[in-house]
Amino acid sequence: MTFETAFPVWNKLNSSQKNRLLDTLITRKVEKGTIIHSGAINCTGLLLIKSGQLRAYMISQEGREITLYRLFDYDMCLFSAYCIMRSIEFEIIVEAEKDTEVWVIPAEVYKNIMDESAAVANFTNEVMGTRFTDVMWLVEQILWKSLDKRLAKFLYEETLIEESNSLKITHERIANHIGSHREVITRMLHHFQNEDIVKLSRGLIEIIDEEKLISLLED
Amino acid sequence: MTFETAFPVWNKLNSSQKNRLLDTLITRKVEKGTIIHSGAINCTGLLLIKSGQLRAYMISQEGREITLYRLFDYDMCLFSAYCIMRSIEFEIIVEAEKDTEVWVIPAEVYKNIMDESAAVANFTNEVMGTRFTDVMWLVEQILWKSLDKRLAKFLYEETLIEESNSLKITHERIANHIGSHREVITRMLHHFQNEDIVKLSRGLIEIIDEEKLISLLED
Repeated sequence: MTFETAFPVWNKLNSSQKNRLLDTLITRKVEKGTIIHSGAINCTGLLLIKSGQLRAYMISQEGREITLYRLFDYDMCLFSAYCIMRSIEFEIIVEAEKDTEVWVIPAEVYKNIMDESAAVANFTNEVMGTRFTDVMWLVEQILWKSLDKRLAKFLYEETLIEESNSLKITHERIANHIGSHREVITRMLHHFQNEDIVKLSRGLIEIIDEEKLISLLED
Repeated sequence: MTFETAFPVWNKLNSSQKNRLLDTLITRKVEKGTIIHSGAINCTGLLLIKSGQLRAYMISQEGREITLYRLFDYDMCLFSAYCIMRSIEFEIIVEAEKDTEVWVIPAEVYKNIMDESAAVANFTNEVMGTRFTDVMWLVEQILWKSLDKRLAKFLYEETLIEESNSLKITHERIANHIGSHREVITRMLHHFQNEDIVKLSRGLIEIIDEEKLISLLED
């Protein structure tokens, strides 16, 4: 797919805007594990994912992480260009969870076009609304769902993303996703194993009773 | 103040847009305690606060509340018009915390103008970014701050909002603000009283050692 077909409001741009985008756009390949954006990396630009998977997370002063949302093919990453959004006063970190290829739109180029084009501004609005919705779900989760539900939900979503019931993931990594501690996750996973929901082996979590896992998700 | 001076991008509107706004705008007075918007009340419209104070909160299935943010004079409430923002998929409740007067812009009128005007779309974006920032702060609080810090922060902010060290507020109400239970708040307030930070009496919390309260806010 080309950038022209992947960028949702391409047809609403005038030719000057199209040219400015194409002239400044770069394609970047990043390996799994690369930090693409963080508070310390200055205004990376807007990222449109060509292929791969990104994770946006935040980190506490003590180094605890929590996943805010994930981005997949053709999703747009806004907050890597937070310098052009003056009302955004939080920092997130974006890392590649898989080998990923992105189109990078320089922040200033995007901002100029957004200032001219109501279509681009409204599209940006919509993307922000989607991320906002993700974060509001997260607030609900951490406030009102117990850890067993959050862990079950995370494992279930992983099986969908990976299209597999065998998950190669460490307990530390899961803790970082759902904002918990490794020890707590290990204890809960052993509880799930005793309930015959999962089977644990070195670096691997196998979902052996998906129905039971799903039943945990219900209120 | 008139709507024309209170609406931040008024000067960037053309005369047709100005007329449509002024022709459909209504002013509404609501008493303290009124629910202005909830999932059940269909798309109230955009609210610009003329005077007063609004609280936006969410509520769990079990009826527990948590304050997301508060709005003051000349703040804009977007999510009371969530029907025009199709990527927003969460529901909030907005209530008047004080006697409040708002300008109500009908959702459809605003949407049409936002579709035409990059200035209005970008302004809307900025407002959403501000609310997003508020919610991200909240996520940090509930994930990584202990309850004593959250309570101290809430009390301190209340003294600033009310411009008084004597707060007329129930323990139940505080619990609803910070997503806790009444019993837990009462226990913590008694702990604060034993530490000579506050003095409790019927329906009243008096901050008697502001310095000590502020010291709790520090990490």
